[in-house]
Amino acid sequence: MINPAAGTPDTDIPATDIPAIDTDVIIIGAGPVGLFAVFELGLLDLKCHLIDILDRPGGQCAELYPEKPIYDIPALPICTGQELTDRLIEQAKPFSPEFHFSQMAEKLEKMDDGRWRLTSDTGTVLQAPVVVIAAGGGSFVPKKPPIKGIEDFEGTSVHYAVRKMEQFRDKNILIAGGGDSALDWTVNLQPLARQMALVHRRDEFRAAPDSVNKMRDLVAAGGMTLHIAQVAALHGENGQLEAVTLKNKEQGEFQVACDTLLAFYGLTMKLGPVAEFGLNLHENLIPVDTEKFETSQPGIFAIGDINHYPGKLKLILSGFHEAALMAQQAFRIIHPDQKLRFQYTTSSSSLQKKLGVS
Amino acid sequence: MINPAAGTPDTDIPATDIPAIDTDVIIIGAGPVGLFAVFELGLLDLKCHLIDILDRPGGQCAELYPEKPIYDIPALPICTGQELTDRLIEQAKPFSPEFHFSQMAEKLEKMDDGRWRLTSDTGTVLQAPVVVIAAGGGSFVPKKPPIKGIEDFEGTSVHYAVRKMEQFRDKNILIAGGGDSALDWTVNLQPLARQMALVHRRDEFRAAPDSVNKMRDLVAAGGMTLHIAQVAALHGENGQLEAVTLKNKEQGEFQVACDTLLAFYGLTMKLGPVAEFGLNLHENLIPVDTEKFETSQPGIFAIGDINHYPGKLKLILSGFHEAALMAQQAFRIIHPDQKLRFQYTTSSSSLQKKLGVS
Repeated sequence: MINPAAGTPDTDIPATDIPAIDTDVIIIGAGPVGLFAVFELGLLDLKCHLIDILDRPGGQCAELYPEKPIYDIPALPICTGQELTDRLIEQAKPFSPEFHFSQMAEKLEKMDDGRWRLTSDTGTVLQAPVVVIAAGGGSFVPKKPPIKGIEDFEGTSVHYAVRKMEQFRDKNILIAGGGDSALDWTVNLQPLARQMALVHRRDEFRAAPDSVNKMRDLVAAGGMTLHIAQVAALHGENGQLEAVTLKNKEQGEFQVACDTLLAFYGLTMKLGPVAEFGLNLHENLIPVDTEKFETSQPGIFAIGDINHYPGKLKLILSGFHEAALMAQQAFRIIHPDQKLRFQYTTSSSSLQKKLGVS
Repeated sequence: MINPAAGTPDTDIPATDIPAIDTDVIIIGAGPVGLFAVFELGLLDLKCHLIDILDRPGGQCAELYPEKPIYDIPALPICTGQELTDRLIEQAKPFSPEFHFSQMAEKLEKMDDGRWRLTSDTGTVLQAPVVVIAAGGGSFVPKKPPIKGIEDFEGTSVHYAVRKMEQFRDKNILIAGGGDSALDWTVNLQPLARQMALVHRRDEFRAAPDSVNKMRDLVAAGGMTLHIAQVAALHGENGQLEAVTLKNKEQGEFQVACDTLLAFYGLTMKLGPVAEFGLNLHENLIPVDTEKFETSQPGIFAIGDINHYPGKLKLILSGFHEAALMAQQAFRIIHPDQKLRFQYTTSSSSLQKKLGVS
């Protein structure tokens, strides 16, 4: 909106104009530890909003080993990452957490009233007196192929994820990679694309056999090309890709024309923007005390794999314990005038009422 | 045995002559935290012996609320004390813990070789480099009736538990109390006893209706007497009880002849002999660090409700976390020359082999 008084249009909208969501606690990370924090905070009547870069709850557990058994959760002799996630969601349900998925917590600022204001990369704004960083190893970000000058094409011709399929209609697409993402998108984008090619360093794929079969059928039918090779160089101008140099032992180097490169080289964990939150860091971990699991910034807590203290073990169990102790201090910050009475779920009828079981 | 060389008989058998059991870790307390410690130590190939004053595993959970739901164990939205115990026993099973039930850990001494030697009140002797106190609120001990001079009769005429029923054959028994123990023993000992009477302060009982009905049937059939009254005084000589004074509003004081008083006034928690172990104490709790949960004595750890540190919450969950961190230091003490490699159950095939799942 043009502000006539100022004389010039506001190109940057001031942060205070974005409609913000007010809550008690902002939790960064909806993995097991973030989910259990909802439960522990909920027992103290504190309401949570969670933000996660993934598109569903569960964090690493659900993303990296949904089907793999975990054996060291107390009293659960065997349980998969997905089952653990489902159980924690059920346990947190009475407290109606609100989730903001597929977003990265990008900016954290202290507000004039002492609360914290978190802005995500998609524009969600959350405001609360307490922020809990339960971000595990950090954000899952795509691994970039080690190709010189690739940054010049990122966002225009080179992509590491598909947000909207329509964006790729009638493109001459080269997909790089041999896993599920590469194979799935090859098969799914092929009907939209003007031309489709897949490049992978060897003729074996770490993807669902069904996707691999579909891709091979498309190749056999002449609907796409498969190159067993590596991407060696990108060619184009002003961010617009025109061709890619591939190479392998048999053919040496050869060029393939394309205007779009989709690279699926897996995900890696990065601390991400949390590193810019102004917290003390120690080897990409956030040092905390062992009484409240608070960071160097009062009101900002770090629990689970992302924190560090003497004796720290990166166990889900430890994150659960840290969530319980954190919740006590969160309550004191949010309700400095109220006395916190420690109660047990087994004996407290008021806690049982909150849990919906009495 | 008389030692001729010494010239005089040994009245006190030297401690070193008692056959001792050697192990890696002695755990005092077989409640949920002690059971999970077996699991965490087992992952590191450490073998445990547990000692508990109760006659089965589960501690408070199984003793005080076996049927009551617990809601705050992570990923177990609802579970009873007994179910939690059963699940933890299953989880610990691959590591074959050995249990010594119905015994109180009475004496803890440092041996010349630096290990610890624990003696129970029934004579069991355990020796290990590491002792883990997971004794919860302490030992469950019977509440004593507030009757002057009762100590003079304890062990001869006054008892707080029944170890062997035969001991009470042909006795003139008075049982005091109105709970399950009082009613069960009234019904079970009545056939053996020469005479049986039950005294309770009011004509209502906090016991299984079936036991109460059986008791009332015996009264109606003339097989026993029920007094609604309080025990006011004991009479007898040299520890041999002869009669008890009872009193109530209607009858005032009156005497009842008996040679045995069984008092079941419930159980209470006492720190017990742990207080004499030479550890620093803070309001009947054992201060520990939050890195290893070690006490003031190297090699002795305290985990669960019995320990104290800044921020401590008496949550079963916290005891689980403490067990995991304790196990790391226990390993270093037991194998000072070996490097401890931290592994995950989800990815380590060697851990999965130990768990019997690979």
